[in-house]
Amino acid sequence: MNLIYLLDLCAVAVCAITATLEARRRELDLFGVVVIAVISGIGGGTVRDLLLGRLPVYWVHDPIYVVVGMVAGTLTFFLSRRIRLPKNFFLVPDAIGLALFTVIGTSVALQLGVPWLIAALMGVITGVFGGVIRDILCNEVPLIFRTDIYATASLAGALLLIALDDYGMGHNLAILFAMICTVAIRLAAIRWHIHLPRLRSDV
Amino acid sequence: MNLIYLLDLCAVAVCAITATLEARRRELDLFGVVVIAVISGIGGGTVRDLLLGRLPVYWVHDPIYVVVGMVAGTLTFFLSRRIRLPKNFFLVPDAIGLALFTVIGTSVALQLGVPWLIAALMGVITGVFGGVIRDILCNEVPLIFRTDIYATASLAGALLLIALDDYGMGHNLAILFAMICTVAIRLAAIRWHIHLPRLRSDV
Amino acid sequence: MNLIYLLDLCAVAVCAITATLEARRRELDLFGVVVIAVISGIGGGTVRDLLLGRLPVYWVHDPIYVVVGMVAGTLTFFLSRRIRLPKNFFLVPDAIGLALFTVIGTSVALQLGVPWLIAALMGVITGVFGGVIRDILCNEVPLIFRTDIYATASLAGALLLIALDDYGMGHNLAILFAMICTVAIRLAAIRWHIHLPRLRSDV
Repeated sequence: MNLIYLLDLCAVAVCAITATLEARRRELDLFGVVVIAVISGIGGGTVRDLLLGRLPVYWVHDPIYVVVGMVAGTLTFFLSRRIRLPKNFFLVPDAIGLALFTVIGTSVALQLGVPWLIAALMGVITGVFGGVIRDILCNEVPLIFRTDIYATASLAGALLLIALDDYGMGHNLAILFAMICTVAIRLAAIRWHIHLPRLRSDV
Repeated sequence: MNLIYLLDLCAVAVCAITATLEARRRELDLFGVVVIAVISGIGGGTVRDLLLGRLPVYWVHDPIYVVVGMVAGTLTFFLSRRIRLPKNFFLVPDAIGLALFTVIGTSVALQLGVPWLIAALMGVITGVFGGVIRDILCNEVPLIFRTDIYATASLAGALLLIALDDYGMGHNLAILFAMICTVAIRLAAIRWHIHLPRLRSDV
Repeated sequence: MNLIYLLDLCAVAVCAITATLEARRRELDLFGVVVIAVISGIGGGTVRDLLLGRLPVYWVHDPIYVVVGMVAGTLTFFLSRRIRLPKNFFLVPDAIGLALFTVIGTSVALQLGVPWLIAALMGVITGVFGGVIRDILCNEVPLIFRTDIYATASLAGALLLIALDDYGMGHNLAILFAMICTVAIRLAAIRWHIHLPRLRSDV
């Protein structure tokens, strides 16, 4: 469990870093950047906790999550004014973070005994809603609604975790397989530009 | 009560369909469309439950609402790539859905014993907030803040329901009158382009 | 405590008024303006209550907050169509409102026994999130992420309140000092255009 906790904090940091890099295009001040970094890191789990009624939300009594997001956002803010970080440097950590958030969100929901469809949704919400709120705050149509497979990779991992759990596989092993599934789909989608059918105004 | 439940599911479906048609102008992929369809269908009731503290929110233990939104969004997505659905085809179902969401939201709040003004607000929130979240996700100023009478029709229905309840009319009959009131105001506003005074930058 | 309550209502009114003036640039109707006014007034405390699990949120059983926001928004709507209110007329009341919301939010969180960092965050959220939601609804990048020191003034006041409380100063006196701190920083930032470092796409 300690490993999961540590990885969770790493995922928050990765989310905060990528959010800061995303925010580079906007004329935000330090405060705005740090807020958006923190919200990107903890927003998904916060929405999950609100919907499930696990209140107060998870970071209220464990503020280390907020601290990690703040520190990661602040460091990236000042670093990115000096050196130009290549954006795709973070694609792999980001995919791992997505996978981790997904299995944590799904596990939390399963423990509360909700139906499997809702548990899968909570996994996806935990994985992607930080980014959705980030994009809303930056006044953009959320990226995950327009881009290559991202939330779909999260959904596949969540469903696999639920299926393996249901067939009696040990939870830790199921988590590992589900994470590999999410990371593999996400990286394959990036590598070969796989995307879902689009709805266009001219069709 | 079974009739209400069935109509509620129909209202979720209508919301999901109109949201998909609204999203046509945006370059969304299938995932984005389905998410926006589901959120439009269940968003209003979700915000109501959050504010009132009825947690977990209503669809966590009754995922049929989510399923109906997903199916309606997916079908509309593929249909709308083949045939061009006239937008005003759904104006009447949409008005009925607004009326239904309003009376359900108001009834739920009244049962919790909140003040009448708050009960009316909860009716309006249930009726219109799905659309507000949809517009925020699509990066637009919410339509109901700019357009002909929509939320006002919902408010009138909610207040009528509360007044009739207070004067001792049976709840089912009061619901019927309130729904007729909302639908009539909404359709009259569409038919004769009635709208509230606007705030313009040049006045 | 009655003084705090009265000042709290005044802060809601000031928020609603400034939100209505901000909304002037958008083609909103009366309903939209009133909704945005009310949400600006009570949005910060609502988000705080949701995150802390203090449900139903504070205005459900005390609808006077909603009424004050509605009345202030409606009056400003009709007044602003006749006379042109100077925008900086409200800078000082707005700074006082920010200070008041901050100390109320921080105090509420401290009473629940949350860690000091979270209590300070809740103060800032109470102070600024009404405006954040207002800007999201108006389809703008929230002003506080881009502008002179605003949330920072709130954060300074919250931290001072926590520190003074911790050192054993009486709560009322601590509140007074914290409010003076927030108002002073805010007005100094306006007067001398002090702002945090920005993140620009060209640096």
